[in-house]
Amino acid sequence: MTMEFATRYRAASRIPADPSKPYVIEKGEGDRAHLFGDLITVYAGGEQTENTFNFFTVEGPRGDIIPAHVHADTHEVFYVTQGAVRLFVEDTEGEQSERVLTPGDFGFVPKNCPHAYRMERHHTQIVGVAAGPGHTFERFFETLGTPTEQLGLPAEPFVPEQHKFGSVREQFDVRFLPDHQWRDR
Amino acid sequence: MTMEFATRYRAASRIPADPSKPYVIEKGEGDRAHLFGDLITVYAGGEQTENTFNFFTVEGPRGDIIPAHVHADTHEVFYVTQGAVRLFVEDTEGEQSERVLTPGDFGFVPKNCPHAYRMERHHTQIVGVAAGPGHTFERFFETLGTPTEQLGLPAEPFVPEQHKFGSVREQFDVRFLPDHQWRDR
Repeated sequence: MTMEFATRYRAASRIPADPSKPYVIEKGEGDRAHLFGDLITVYAGGEQTENTFNFFTVEGPRGDIIPAHVHADTHEVFYVTQGAVRLFVEDTEGEQSERVLTPGDFGFVPKNCPHAYRMERHHTQIVGVAAGPGHTFERFFETLGTPTEQLGLPAEPFVPEQHKFGSVREQFDVRFLPDHQWRDR
Repeated sequence: MTMEFATRYRAASRIPADPSKPYVIEKGEGDRAHLFGDLITVYAGGEQTENTFNFFTVEGPRGDIIPAHVHADTHEVFYVTQGAVRLFVEDTEGEQSERVLTPGDFGFVPKNCPHAYRMERHHTQIVGVAAGPGHTFERFFETLGTPTEQLGLPAEPFVPEQHKFGSVREQFDVRFLPDHQWRDR
């Protein structure tokens, strides 16, 4: 049995509006959004967890590095289930590192560490958890990007208007770093 | 470059003792424990996330249903990456359901919902996140079970002594329900 629910985010969502209800969502049927060339699928968010954590996937083709950014109060997991992701991170002392993650590999980015990533294979999928004390992050993608009912990757990349990059900063604790350089590249 | 760290949990862990440090852990190299026939691998815990969330995997063979239990203050994710898992859940009104999850399928069990699961294929892997406001859950497995340095499934199932099932209740918000019945089975 597959149920759909009206929530504050979707007219028809697989995520129950009542957070006390257990639920199952089949692969791909979470709340979906497009941002650049990627498909983001939210399976659980702050409403489900008393604003403790969330759970989403990011799928995309091999592509460009996403813009460097930093979260003041949000810790982030990158767990690769398909393909390959090159994760770029700078620690709070300015030390930079990059690593290619393949399926089953795990990356952790604490708050205040600038980071970026680049998908290095087509059909890459990352599982993400991104949250800090009392707040979660999962609606960032559809706010900077756009919600979609489609299954699958965007037919055309969705490129946000420039002013939106600034407006997500307070709402989602995402500060873009347009002048950031990854050294040794 | 692979680093090892002495932490409160392991003499040599891939998880940095300093929670401000970004890190990568290759597949299988998190903090490992055996419980019954399963291998549990912790990639991030409360120390990394200001007690907000955690991230671990549970791998096992096809086997028996694990004992029904409930968490008073912990929400739990079951995300299947390999094999198949039958998830049994009862909501707070007593309504029971069961579903088979295969790779990419997602199950969510809110606090106060009795639940259990059974791996239905060999080489099954579940990704788990289990936390509630201000507390995480990931060291439950090595406390009821046993820490291990081994890679791979236990050669013999690790069966906890009976008294330990009660002692984890307060420490990890896990209450076993030995008399619980899953109807329609």
